[in-house]
Amino acid sequence: MSDSSAVHQSDPVLVEVLRGGLVESRHRGAAAIVDADGKIVASWGDIERPVFARSAIKPLQALPLVESGAAERYRLGATELALACASHHGEKSHVEAVARWLDRVDLGPDDLQCGVHPPNDAASAQALIRAGEQPSPLHCNCSGKHTGFLTTARHFGETTRGYIEPDHPVQIRVAQALGEMCGIDIDGAPRGTDGCGIPVFGLPLAAMARGMARMADPHGLAGDRATAARRLLDAMAERPLMVDGTGGFATVVMQTVGGKARIKPGAEGVFCGALPGLGYGVALKIADGAGRGAEIAMGGILERLGVFDEAARGTLDATLRPVLRNLAGTVVGAIRPAATLLG
Amino acid sequence: MSDSSAVHQSDPVLVEVLRGGLVESRHRGAAAIVDADGKIVASWGDIERPVFARSAIKPLQALPLVESGAAERYRLGATELALACASHHGEKSHVEAVARWLDRVDLGPDDLQCGVHPPNDAASAQALIRAGEQPSPLHCNCSGKHTGFLTTARHFGETTRGYIEPDHPVQIRVAQALGEMCGIDIDGAPRGTDGCGIPVFGLPLAAMARGMARMADPHGLAGDRATAARRLLDAMAERPLMVDGTGGFATVVMQTVGGKARIKPGAEGVFCGALPGLGYGVALKIADGAGRGAEIAMGGILERLGVFDEAARGTLDATLRPVLRNLAGTVVGAIRPAATLLG
Repeated sequence: MSDSSAVHQSDPVLVEVLRGGLVESRHRGAAAIVDADGKIVASWGDIERPVFARSAIKPLQALPLVESGAAERYRLGATELALACASHHGEKSHVEAVARWLDRVDLGPDDLQCGVHPPNDAASAQALIRAGEQPSPLHCNCSGKHTGFLTTARHFGETTRGYIEPDHPVQIRVAQALGEMCGIDIDGAPRGTDGCGIPVFGLPLAAMARGMARMADPHGLAGDRATAARRLLDAMAERPLMVDGTGGFATVVMQTVGGKARIKPGAEGVFCGALPGLGYGVALKIADGAGRGAEIAMGGILERLGVFDEAARGTLDATLRPVLRNLAGTVVGAIRPAATLLG
Repeated sequence: MSDSSAVHQSDPVLVEVLRGGLVESRHRGAAAIVDADGKIVASWGDIERPVFARSAIKPLQALPLVESGAAERYRLGATELALACASHHGEKSHVEAVARWLDRVDLGPDDLQCGVHPPNDAASAQALIRAGEQPSPLHCNCSGKHTGFLTTARHFGETTRGYIEPDHPVQIRVAQALGEMCGIDIDGAPRGTDGCGIPVFGLPLAAMARGMARMADPHGLAGDRATAARRLLDAMAERPLMVDGTGGFATVVMQTVGGKARIKPGAEGVFCGALPGLGYGVALKIADGAGRGAEIAMGGILERLGVFDEAARGTLDATLRPVLRNLAGTVVGAIRPAATLLG
């Protein structure tokens, strides 16, 4: 490990957690707002250090599904394309839609190699427990993305088993699309394995944001890819509940702002966004990996960029600057974006 | 808010989260190792900034219960005293012991004003759901501490309702003990409200660690307080399962090292420890509030101080440097203390 922790440069504080009269905790992080040509519109912290984007770049990972013609061949609609870009909450609507999609490509839940975890939606998780049932791979937040992977494998007549491996054609296509969209040499990028078993690549936030900007403003892309980018972002805007879940930050924000912002969180404090109206991409990483920090930082950046009109700002007040309550329900604190983020 | 986030000084990285070939996330923080006279043995980051200790100083908050004579009068044993210092997991053994204790002081679960949350122990939480039952205040991780508060109120013949309020004699005694043990002017300390409704005070980590050191090495304390400190730490060592819960970091460490270290985590990344053999107190705060960071940092500090012999080091390997697995069970990363912590 060449990276010495003792001298690791500190990112700025992006989010503050307040209790009583004190800032109780602070989330540092780095963030980039970039246009489709790679121009840095604004940035905080080190945006050239490689970061595992985790699930925050699922829209980029879904490009091969559409540009290959697989989505058209299997008549995938907005629901399926949104699920391909999703970290869903394992609610009934998610699970049933993924099951129907798998059936459409003559596969089933056992073909999913994403692994299993209880639904991220608390009510759905409790319903399973009450019913005495175990979660299945369908409940995994990544089951839509994986069904997209399986669909491209079916389309090209490839073996489906092993589709999560780095040398399977499915992952080679995903890696190639990522490298091209982000403008980086993907073969030279640091590697790891994601929670759902697929390869992850260390990408600078500047590159990640550029990839998202080219989704938002695909003028420089080849025809099939430009169409694929538009279809995927349109699906996210049309089915925000499929991308995240009931009450989820990304769902609530996208339900409120319509087509202005398509945003996607990832594990360990990553959050990406594509802003079609502005032609910008956003990528941020909370250094400590906290999801609460990533949400509030993304909210602050969208606010800075004028994505919220007055009505949206009102609707989203409790989402963008949540109060913290104690167990008795009394307000004891709050979370807010740091002033540096709002500009 | 006088604290400007943009210029807030950065604490050093204390814990690293690895994935593949990268440090994926980093937890910064401050920590102090202090002796009973207040001498700083070692420190990292800013240990003079006020920090809400949250549940990490429950052993200090339990002093009035014992030194008042209430513990003796109501024949409290190691189980009850350990629960007074606990953030328990709401397991059957915890809930039943708290219920028996309440009964012994002629009170019941409805007298607890700590609030309600599902058991922190996943199996216990699922068992409640399967049984179609709601959690009660007994399941709240703070129910033991609150039963201790109620016991002192009964002992002194005070009104029990409102025992969580800052001006109730129960909280006045707790604040006074805290101020005396930590050597600070508690009336001038920043205030907030804890998750369980009681007042919290902003304490420098150096002061917090000194308070814990005086628990560990009570030679300078008055007789009743010195005895109370010994009884509480002995109870924690004797009943580590009551202090935390099955599989909990503090429980596992204390089960392994016996009387060498009594450690207690708090919300938002705080962790305190009393080391009787060395006569040291430890207090640390992960700046971003992450519990995983606080655990691994505390483990690193105990390791540095030689608390673990070779056998303990072997037993605790998976606790001190946990591997991270993906959903399929494959090892994809690890968490480790930063080199700066190990010295």
